[in-house]
Amino acid sequence: MAAASEGDVKLLGMVVSPFVVRVRMALHLKGVSYEYVEQDLFTKGELLLKHNPVHKKVPVLLHDGKPICESLAIVQYVDEVWAASGPSLLPADPHQRAVARFWAAYVDDKFFPAWISIMRAETEEERAKKVGEAAEVTEQLEAALAQCANGKQAFFSGDDSVGYLDLAVGCNLFWLDAMRKMVGVVVIDAARTPGLAAWADRFRESHVGKEVLPDADIAAEYAKKIQAYRQAAVAASM
Amino acid sequence: MAAASEGDVKLLGMVVSPFVVRVRMALHLKGVSYEYVEQDLFTKGELLLKHNPVHKKVPVLLHDGKPICESLAIVQYVDEVWAASGPSLLPADPHQRAVARFWAAYVDDKFFPAWISIMRAETEEERAKKVGEAAEVTEQLEAALAQCANGKQAFFSGDDSVGYLDLAVGCNLFWLDAMRKMVGVVVIDAARTPGLAAWADRFRESHVGKEVLPDADIAAEYAKKIQAYRQAAVAASM
Repeated sequence: MAAASEGDVKLLGMVVSPFVVRVRMALHLKGVSYEYVEQDLFTKGELLLKHNPVHKKVPVLLHDGKPICESLAIVQYVDEVWAASGPSLLPADPHQRAVARFWAAYVDDKFFPAWISIMRAETEEERAKKVGEAAEVTEQLEAALAQCANGKQAFFSGDDSVGYLDLAVGCNLFWLDAMRKMVGVVVIDAARTPGLAAWADRFRESHVGKEVLPDADIAAEYAKKIQAYRQAAVAASM
Repeated sequence: MAAASEGDVKLLGMVVSPFVVRVRMALHLKGVSYEYVEQDLFTKGELLLKHNPVHKKVPVLLHDGKPICESLAIVQYVDEVWAASGPSLLPADPHQRAVARFWAAYVDDKFFPAWISIMRAETEEERAKKVGEAAEVTEQLEAALAQCANGKQAFFSGDDSVGYLDLAVGCNLFWLDAMRKMVGVVVIDAARTPGLAAWADRFRESHVGKEVLPDADIAAEYAKKIQAYRQAAVAASM
């Protein structure tokens, strides 16, 4: 599947950023070839500071030299520019599009902060509290899946192929797997959210799940590195 | 300007919510007739809780009974459903669309919280700090305007009529005017951000600025009401 008139496409990324993974999945689905340029977020380079001076964050897509920032805006851009290549990421129906945008915002505003705060918890008590909060957020996503997939054994796209909202949620899965391995916390619990757990299995088995989703061990390694930096900072400040 | 096949359109709103004002402006620009249903956010009604159970917030657009939530998703929905009526709100060019989406997210994630935290400051010292933070955020919007309007005396749309990002920023203006009257704080300062100050004047003089933007005094009255509730809560807790 080759995309026509791709132009020069570069992606500034970082291997364990779920937001970068989301964009890589969109490009993969559209069959867009691109140069991937890994960024060191500990020492941010000129390219990143030049092209995302506002947030100084990855991902940044450079298309014929023009920067596009913020992962959800990038995925929509990819969907619009390469409309004729691969599947449509957003649904065609305006109401379904609005629902997908609503839940994608929910993922970034509620779901991502919920699981990251479990990772960052400094005591067992705090972690237990954050796990409880994440469970409530995850139950909302279970309801979203029922609404979007319309009762079918399918994806958030309402179809049998992944779409915009699937990428929005699915790009977090390798971190959830890493967290389960590292601290034994299960965010998408088959007992509490069976629909979402089955969806997660389908997503992992999908084309982008297999081809693009990083291995959980890479996320776990990165988490250990961050933890070591934090401990060094605490030690140095004593 | 009449929109074809409008269907049954209701908007659950609250008069001083900038997010509601944003949607009213979009509907106004598209010439869509709708029933406006004011909500009491102190005692949330069944209609709101039923149609936005996740966030329990206004605005909610009900189109033929189907709810659409989150103001930016609603504005895009309005733009897509009534594509043939009135001006396009998002630009046609994918890169310009991505830039407009990027900055609209910035408005909601940074600009709105910046001015609201000035309103909520409890001491003069805290207020001064928040004013300083808001100034930095506002300077970024000045740069955004220069980028989007491309040096012309125009709107964020890059055109001589307001668009998606103009609505995103402009719906906050009556609150900024209220704040200037109430506490003497000027967020969009003609000395620091001359382009944005001139844009704000143009926006107030635009069709939706005149027809839809509420009067600053209504916002000031609402702020006093909130303040009275807060003081009562403090008094009762002593």
